[in-house]
Formats: sequence, C-alpha cells, structure tokens
Amino acid sequence: MPFLMNAWYVAAWADELKPDVIISRRILDLPIALFRRSDGRPAAILDRCPHRFAPLSAGRVKDDAIACGYHGLAFDGEGRCVANPHGPVLRNAAIAAWPVHDAHRATWIWMGDRDRADPALIPDLSYLDDAPDTAFSAGQLLSGAGQYEIFVDNIMDLSHTDFLHPTTLGGGAVTSARQDIEEAPNHIDVTWYSPDTPPAPLLRELFDDLPASTDSFQKVRWYAPSVMRLIAATVESGQPEETALANTNAHIMTPETSTSTHYFFAATRNYRVDDAALNERIATTRARIFATEDKPMIENVQARMGDAEFWSLKPLLLPIDAASVRVRRRLKALIDREAAGG
Amino acid sequence: MPFLMNAWYVAAWADELKPDVIISRRILDLPIALFRRSDGRPAAILDRCPHRFAPLSAGRVKDDAIACGYHGLAFDGEGRCVANPHGPVLRNAAIAAWPVHDAHRATWIWMGDRDRADPALIPDLSYLDDAPDTAFSAGQLLSGAGQYEIFVDNIMDLSHTDFLHPTTLGGGAVTSARQDIEEAPNHIDVTWYSPDTPPAPLLRELFDDLPASTDSFQKVRWYAPSVMRLIAATVESGQPEETALANTNAHIMTPETSTSTHYFFAATRNYRVDDAALNERIATTRARIFATEDKPMIENVQARMGDAEFWSLKPLLLPIDAASVRVRRRLKALIDREAAGG
Amino acid sequence: MPFLMNAWYVAAWADELKPDVIISRRILDLPIALFRRSDGRPAAILDRCPHRFAPLSAGRVKDDAIACGYHGLAFDGEGRCVANPHGPVLRNAAIAAWPVHDAHRATWIWMGDRDRADPALIPDLSYLDDAPDTAFSAGQLLSGAGQYEIFVDNIMDLSHTDFLHPTTLGGGAVTSARQDIEEAPNHIDVTWYSPDTPPAPLLRELFDDLPASTDSFQKVRWYAPSVMRLIAATVESGQPEETALANTNAHIMTPETSTSTHYFFAATRNYRVDDAALNERIATTRARIFATEDKPMIENVQARMGDAEFWSLKPLLLPIDAASVRVRRRLKALIDREAAGG
Repeated sequence: MPFLMNAWYVAAWADELKPDVIISRRILDLPIALFRRSDGRPAAILDRCPHRFAPLSAGRVKDDAIACGYHGLAFDGEGRCVANPHGPVLRNAAIAAWPVHDAHRATWIWMGDRDRADPALIPDLSYLDDAPDTAFSAGQLLSGAGQYEIFVDNIMDLSHTDFLHPTTLGGGAVTSARQDIEEAPNHIDVTWYSPDTPPAPLLRELFDDLPASTDSFQKVRWYAPSVMRLIAATVESGQPEETALANTNAHIMTPETSTSTHYFFAATRNYRVDDAALNERIATTRARIFATEDKPMIENVQARMGDAEFWSLKPLLLPIDAASVRVRRRLKALIDREAAGG
Repeated sequence: MPFLMNAWYVAAWADELKPDVIISRRILDLPIALFRRSDGRPAAILDRCPHRFAPLSAGRVKDDAIACGYHGLAFDGEGRCVANPHGPVLRNAAIAAWPVHDAHRATWIWMGDRDRADPALIPDLSYLDDAPDTAFSAGQLLSGAGQYEIFVDNIMDLSHTDFLHPTTLGGGAVTSARQDIEEAPNHIDVTWYSPDTPPAPLLRELFDDLPASTDSFQKVRWYAPSVMRLIAATVESGQPEETALANTNAHIMTPETSTSTHYFFAATRNYRVDDAALNERIATTRARIFATEDKPMIENVQARMGDAEFWSLKPLLLPIDAASVRVRRRLKALIDREAAGG
Repeated sequence: MPFLMNAWYVAAWADELKPDVIISRRILDLPIALFRRSDGRPAAILDRCPHRFAPLSAGRVKDDAIACGYHGLAFDGEGRCVANPHGPVLRNAAIAAWPVHDAHRATWIWMGDRDRADPALIPDLSYLDDAPDTAFSAGQLLSGAGQYEIFVDNIMDLSHTDFLHPTTLGGGAVTSARQDIEEAPNHIDVTWYSPDTPPAPLLRELFDDLPASTDSFQKVRWYAPSVMRLIAATVESGQPEETALANTNAHIMTPETSTSTHYFFAATRNYRVDDAALNERIATTRARIFATEDKPMIENVQARMGDAEFWSLKPLLLPIDAASVRVRRRLKALIDREAAGG
C-alpha cells in the first residue's frame, strides 16, 4: 500500500537537531538529511548530492546550508545550491526539500504537496509542551523491522499488554475491559474501561499504598496516519476519574520503508511530577519493555507475514481488533482518496 | 524441485521436546511449532497465530496447547483453538497441524496427506533404540546452507572421506574400494568394500592394537527422501565381517528451505559399548568434523551452484557418483509421481 | 553495463601468490582460483570443480595443479584434468582457464578472447619495477562496495581531495587548479596544476623545511578500463618541475561484481628513498585514508545510486568532471565496440 503523503510525520525529536548536526533518516523510503538553521528553523532536504550522489549527511553544516563532503557543493534548507567551490553558484541546481515544523517537542515533516503543509494540521500533542523535565521522557526505536500499521495495531489494541507485558503493564485488566470506540472526522478514539481490577504490576511496584481494587481507563486517540495519544489512568474503585494517577503518552510511528518503522515515544504524568528519579525509572522501564517485548514481537509478526498484504492473510478478527480495524479502514480510505486526487 | 510431501521427516530428536518447551523450526519451508503434550505425545502446528500472525513459539505451553504470547489465543496439538481470553472459544478457528510420531529416539513429522501418515512407513532406525547411553550419541547441524540433496550426495558417495577427512575418517580406502549397489522397492544400498587396507586414521588413534591390514566395509542404506543408515566396519584382513569393529550411524537430512537443511546424526557402535569416555570422544570428533569440514564444503558447493538446478550445471559423472545418481533419480520419480497424483 | 573483456585486469599483487597458496577471488563476477606453478608462472582457473561444484580453492596445490578438496580431481593451470583418483584421467574434462601474466609487481588476468591476450598491452607501470623496498608500498581494499567506475571517477577527479581528505592530501590546491586534459589512443591524461599554493597538510607533516608557497602538479594517466598512474609533485614556487618532491602511485580497480571492486594501490617516490620509516608512515597513512575516507564515501554513493545506471540519474556535471566523463565515454565506446564484435 502506498503511503499517505499529505500528512505530518515526526522526523525527529526536536532536540536531536542540534547546531552542526546532520541526521540522515529514511522516511517513506526516501533518504532525508535533517539539520537546523542558525535561526532555529529545522530543514529537511534530499540526502543525496545531485553531482555525484554522495549523501549530504556525510558533509557539514555551514552558513545554514549543507556542504557536501565529497566535492563541496552546498545546498540550503530549501534545497537550493548556494555554494560551488568549482565555479559560479549553480542557481538552477536544486534538490528536493520538504516542509518541516517544530511542534510539541518534535520536528514534523510533510512529504506531500507542499502547498498543503499547514502546521495547524499537526496532531495536538500539546500535553507534551509544558511538562516539566522531571515528568517528561522521550525515546525512539529507530528502524524496527515491521510495517508501521503493525506498530499502530499494537497501540490500538491494548489487550496485548496482558499477554506481552504481564509483569509490568498488563495484569489482565484490559482483557476484561469494556471497549468503547468513537470516530470523529480527524481522529478515532478507543477507551478500555476496567472497573474493580487490581492495578498493573508496574504501578504496584512504584506505589506502596495503592488500593487493592482500582478502576482503570486506557484511552487512545489516533490521528492519521500513525500518531497516537495514550492516557493510562488508574483510580481507587468508585472515585472520580479526575483524581486518577494518569500517564499521558505519545506513540508515533513514522514509516522508514514499507516494512520498517521509526517508533517515537514520549510520556508525561500527573503524579509526583517533581520526582526525577521516578521519571528516570519509568523511562528506563518503558524503553526496556519496547526493546525487549514489543519490538521482537512485531519483528516476528512481520517475518511471519513476509511480503503478504495484511488482509490477504485473512486475519481472524476478534472484538479486541475493533479499533485497529477502523483505523486501518480509515487510513486506507485516506490513501485511496489521495490516489484519486482528492 | 518440489519436496516429497508424503514421507516422514525428522523434525527433532525426541529429547529436544521437553515439557514446556516450544521449538520453532522451519521444515519444507513452513514454520512449525513443536511441543510435547502431557501424555507424552509430540505435536506440530503452524508457528503462526491466525489472529495477528505472531509466532506461537513465542508463547507458552498450557493445558496441552500453546497460548499465543501476543493476545492469548490457544491452540492444541491438532491445531484447534481451545482458549480465547477475549470471548467464547472460537471452535471454527484452527491452524494447520501435522502428524508427528516418536520413533527411534526421533520425532518424525508427516508433511503430506495426513490419511497416509502411517508410522509403519518410518525408516527402520531401530538400531538406535536400545543402544546404551555409553554407546550412543546424537547431534544436529541446524540450518546448514545447502540443498538437502547435496547433503544426501555427501553420504551416498563416501569416497569424499579420503579427501575431505584425510586425517580422521578417510585414509584412501574408500577410493580404492569395490562399490556395489542394490536397489530395493523401499531403499537403495551401496557398499564400499576395501580389502587389505590400513585402518582409518581415527580408528588408529582410538586403538593401539589394530592390525596393519584390515578389510573395511562402508554400507549405506538410503530411504526416501533423505534418511540414511551408515555401517562402517573394519576387521583384520581375512576375518569374518561379523567380528568387525562396527559403527552404525544415522544421517538424516530434513529440508529447512529449498537451499538449507537440518542435518540430524546419531551413532552407535558394537565395541567398548560401556566406555563413556570413548563415546564422548567419538561424538565430539564427529561433531567437529561435520561442523568444520562437511558443512563448509557443502555451503561452498551451494554457493557455487547458486540458484541453478543440479543437472542444468552438467555435473561430470564419475563411478563414485553411481549411488547418489540412483538416489536422485529415485527421489525425482517419487516426487513426479506425487505431483501426478500417485 | 557489461565489462570490457579484452583487457588486462590486476588479479593480485604478484607476491600474494606464494607456493602452495590458492587465492579465491571473484573477478568480473566469475569465481577464479589463482595459484603459482613451480616454474613461477601464475595460473588462473575457474574456482569450481566440474564434478560436484566444490570450490577448487578449498583444495591444494600439487604437481602444478589444484587437487579438489572434495573428491580429488586435479586441474592444471590450463584447466585440464590431470589427475582422477577414481579412474583414468579424464582427458576431455576441463574447466575454464585464463591467461595471466606477471608484470610490474602485479599478476594480470585477461578475461576475454585468449588469442588477443598480448602482454604488451599491459599498462606501463614500470615505475613500480625497480623501486627500492624503502620507497615502495602496495595494498588493496578488497571487495569495496561500489561499482568500479565510481572508484575510477574518484581518481580522475582529484578535486575531491580538498573536501574528503582536507587534513592530509587536500588543502584546497586542486580546487583552484588549472585542469588540462589530453586524449591519446591508449590513455587519457589529466593534469591539475596549482601554482603558488601551500603544500598539502600531509606533506607539511612529513617535512619541516617546506617553502610556504609551492607549485603542485597532479597528473593522472588512465588506461582502459580502470588502471591509473597518479604523479603528485610539489616544488617551491617557480622552480622547475623536475626538482619536485614526487610520489608516483598506481590506482587499479578490478571489478569484483557489477557493484563491488577490488582496489589495488601502490606507491613510489623520488625523495628520501632509503627512509624505511617514512615509507611505512606513508603507507599506513594512505591505507587509513582509503579505508576510512574513500571507501565509506564510495559505498555511500553506491548506496544512494542503488541499482540505477549512472547517467539515468542525471548527474550535475561540473568542470571538475571533465576527465572522468571522458573516461566514462571512452570506456563505453570500447565496450560497445566489443559488443559489436570489434
């Protein structure tokens, strides 16, 4: 399936793009060189010099442009040739450049029609903006083998936590949850509500004084094509949801190729927000879970699927798939509409 | 060339399948999950959950079934769904399962028409059954790069021992041997008889008191598609064969893919059968020879053949190839007959 | 693009072919076994036994032939079967053999029509012949990922030294140089002349007493398909070129496959020719530069080009490409003529 082009994808966490740094990253199967200009604006250009096809990312940033490390031609953030050590500047020489925009601590890239690259279309991850450092962490699994929709399914169907993460995130609550799905024009929401269940093992590790019976809410909001907000909230049974211990996480999948994915994740929380040690502990645990449990599972799923298209394998559909199936259908409709010129 | 489907292949040594263990093994290019039920019966099912295509081997054995490690669906040894944490058991959901049978210390799998899976068709390796532990050893080279018929050729033409294993198994005797071939309906036999030759180097290492001149017999019996018994016997020149020092070995090739092979081997002997140290020494030496001499050679042969079909490369035929050529022809006839519905 | 067949390629440095050594090397995508006969003549035969396709290089040299390590058939340097342990010598069994010839410290192979394999056509690298050991070094980058023409471009356009090797070979002089190109029937010359420039950084490291202003000459002579002589000379500004400090190097590219290259290089010099320590220092530095700067760059260029043909990517042509473009055109004309039977 082709990619959705007219959409914002996360290319990097904003703080990856430090001065003088060039990041080479394959996005929607194109090699992209990412860097930051001296006025702070990020830039994304094709990571391939038009002269002899050297990766520009092997060059260096100079005067808000990248000078190629092979023969010195330089290209600015708009892709224009701005320096040629071997003669006059080649005003007609240019390479592809893409709109990029910093928002919510991430650098977003628009791979489609640049006239439609409206920053207002960036999914609302504003909960990340003001989180104190002691209640914020971000990370990434770069280039996990697996088509990005498999990674999306993994978040849209949180029942997997009970089986894949039984000693940390899952304790059986999601499997017994009531599932509600709501579709809106710009997002799809799924809520897993589990009243009167024990808190998840990881939560019990972090708190000595948890009640034995809690109500838990797992709320996922998906934005096309592959950005998700996940609120995981736990409260003493019967108490108002507003008083819950809540983590608000972002799970963001950017296709690297048709079968591999950059997985960006970030977390904030509403409890012990000044506790740097707790923050670090949560971040470390989460990174370990993704790297040792989700990533190998998704790689294995991809390996078993091989080159086959998902539906061609006739997946057995269960109630837990309801949200992920709606997401797959919505995404397919968007891509089909784009292909039809819409 | 397609595989012969209606035949028993060794999937594992029987003792690999311990309680609670799931082995993932690709056989005839299909991913298989092997496990043992509580009543001792082995089971083989497709190593791919029909829900989201997770490898079942990443799950765990529970109640004589495998519970998927991703979302918890469980499938028994017949491939039937027997547990669904997310709703009623899906009686119509099933995955492929294959007949498996323990015999001669191995677990055999039948990949073809299950109605024809008669354990009586398992090749007779009964010489392995009653061998004392001190006169028995088994091993495997998993996933050697090389089409299984190349591995079969390697046993059907033992003259290679004089060149590939000159310091251990071969001393020149096979090359000078008289070769006899007999075809029977269910097997092909080849005997290499070398009167009045020095014993092989490895044998001289193991025994101080060997006669300088011996008669040696190498007898190989092939069963379709790729199971071989090899008797290597050495006796003082002129003495009756019945008094020979004899090793009786099994060489069993199970195709992993069209260009890689699981190589199972086992050995018994009729001398010093209580000598555990000797047993260990022979096993270690043999494993080393296979891993450092046969395996690299066959991998190199496969690399040189590339994707070409064996006969298309017009191999130079020598008298030493007589048995392996008969085996290749017999096997091709069996596969052709199967393709024709026979 | 097909390879030029009727041409001499370097298969090895001559001293690689020691007695009893067999080198397996893929050249123009064919597996070749190289060895030296007892009279000193090198030999090159197909590295694949016609019996069971074992690589002959896994065998051993015996009686000026290679005895296969699998079943003992032996083939001499002309590819003729000269020994068969299993029966009469197979006078009609032969494998491909190629003309090889030692010259200028290298062993050259002719992959085309053997009747045209005239050693007089070997490019003149005689400057390597008589260099004392203390003013000679040679090396190779075996199997660098990159089509050989990209490696050739790298030498035909030395302006890259200013950008890829700014701390050693390049100091900006080449970029500001006057470039002269001359075409002759059997070679193409390019000279980069940079008057009144500072000497290159590496030269300044090696000599305390260099003048601040020098004239530098970089002269490259290309012979089809991919052999180059490079004279790098530096002299005090205004002094005669004959008094320059000069390195005379050979850069020789032998295609391994269509996208990988054996890179042979050698160097001599006209200064401090008895200084073994200096010789070693230059050799080590050069090997490091090739391995850590040129090789990764060319591998990256190849990766960015993918399977595309060079011209199909519409490279941006600069004045610095003049020589490399002439070489590419000359080479294409030679290959086209060969394809047309010329």
